[in-house]
Amino acid sequence: MFERIAILGPGLLGASLLLAARRRGLCRGTAVWSRRAETRVKCEGQPWCDAVFADPGEAVAEADFVVVCTPVDTIVPLLAQIAPRLRPGTLVTDVGSTKSLICRHGRAALPPSVAFVGSHPMAGSEKTGLEHADPELFQGRACFVTPLADTPAADVDRVARFWKALGLEVATTTPEVHDEIAAHLSHLPHLIASAYCAYLSTRDPAWLHFAGPGLRDTTRVAAGDPALWKAIALQNREEILRALDAFQRELDHLRTALHNQQPFALQHLLERGRDWRVRLRPLGEKS
Amino acid sequence: MFERIAILGPGLLGASLLLAARRRGLCRGTAVWSRRAETRVKCEGQPWCDAVFADPGEAVAEADFVVVCTPVDTIVPLLAQIAPRLRPGTLVTDVGSTKSLICRHGRAALPPSVAFVGSHPMAGSEKTGLEHADPELFQGRACFVTPLADTPAADVDRVARFWKALGLEVATTTPEVHDEIAAHLSHLPHLIASAYCAYLSTRDPAWLHFAGPGLRDTTRVAAGDPALWKAIALQNREEILRALDAFQRELDHLRTALHNQQPFALQHLLERGRDWRVRLRPLGEKS
Repeated sequence: MFERIAILGPGLLGASLLLAARRRGLCRGTAVWSRRAETRVKCEGQPWCDAVFADPGEAVAEADFVVVCTPVDTIVPLLAQIAPRLRPGTLVTDVGSTKSLICRHGRAALPPSVAFVGSHPMAGSEKTGLEHADPELFQGRACFVTPLADTPAADVDRVARFWKALGLEVATTTPEVHDEIAAHLSHLPHLIASAYCAYLSTRDPAWLHFAGPGLRDTTRVAAGDPALWKAIALQNREEILRALDAFQRELDHLRTALHNQQPFALQHLLERGRDWRVRLRPLGEKS
Repeated sequence: MFERIAILGPGLLGASLLLAARRRGLCRGTAVWSRRAETRVKCEGQPWCDAVFADPGEAVAEADFVVVCTPVDTIVPLLAQIAPRLRPGTLVTDVGSTKSLICRHGRAALPPSVAFVGSHPMAGSEKTGLEHADPELFQGRACFVTPLADTPAADVDRVARFWKALGLEVATTTPEVHDEIAAHLSHLPHLIASAYCAYLSTRDPAWLHFAGPGLRDTTRVAAGDPALWKAIALQNREEILRALDAFQRELDHLRTALHNQQPFALQHLLERGRDWRVRLRPLGEKS
């Protein structure tokens, strides 16, 4: 499918991607760049890594497919930095959790001879780092591919085919629709869990011993990297605020029903929530 | 340890309790009562069940340890119903998720010759029903034992020793302290997850396909039984409202930081949440 895939930022996602691509025969060679010397040393021993570079321009110079896997606030600057080194016809994508800013500014940072289509494979984990690379990370997960209005259909198709070959289910939307969905299904739930844990940190530390499986699951995402999530929240600020304000109205309904001891209103809210939750198909199961 | 344990309401918890008690040799015989004929039929074939009764008074008449495992709003009426049939010296507990109302009214409903101490083993699951009985359900989980001011220490000790023998870590608190902790670590997180899913049910149903592992974990508890959780919420209403209002202030801080694009305030909140979350020891690991 590709001669050489270059990954900029080989963390959990980038490393898993190369592992899976190699096993499925989707590329002949691989190249990686990491900002950190420590990570570059780790990459050298890996079966999914043919060449490691200290300069991102060198890593992409021979590649026909480039996947940027760095934190969302570094993607556009990195695209601008590699722009002069990309060969005409190279396909470039990113895996950032926000899309509107990245797709608009990313496209503008690259030469017209290069194809750029944003992606967002929904396959994170609270485990980070290439040590946890897992070729099955993508199986059955959703992946957004987010072309701009003037992105050639052939480029969209090439990116979509790559993700499908890795086992993801691809949905093509505008970057704006992606950001609305991601705010609701990922960013806001993460921020609520973080705020909840931040609140609990103000209470008796002995309570840590009493947390059951429910609280563990509910708050698991709050263990994520604060710097990464701060950048995501700021990049998708408007959609998250809109979702937060709409959710706040539901939370206010809940408060009123509880305060006024309204069993029917309370049960109705719990039933609406239960009915939505049980419709989520188990992960990895085909729709 | 006991001659005969009687379980009123053999769901996931009651059935797991008898399975575990029998394996550990904590009782000679067992008796169960269920309101539903269908459940009584299911119990008859189970290895943990010696006798099934259609009348709760008959189920407890020969027992020296009674564990009430029914929904929180039915526990006190059931205690009042079995009161005349309990033998003097019988030890009675319940596993309700709320404690203040149950302990106060439960004690008052029983004769002084019977020992009553409330319990709350934090070992639920979104799977319910005796079919999912699991003798390892309790391993390493926390269990509250909640005596009133005048509960004899010897009674508290008997109940605590039983839970410890099942593998739980016992914490003894007042019913009021329990209810404050449970509101924070269980009831409010559940209600927030339910409200979040209720909100998502108002949005595009196609979004169901895009839910990743984060949202799945964050909202798992919302799949719980609405009637059970409505009863819990109403019984622990005051503590939940207090916790909700305090959490609301943290959520308002988050909104302000995001709205005003304050990266330091945002990062600080995320770090406080992360620092609390990573201190939760993995389930089943000894503290």
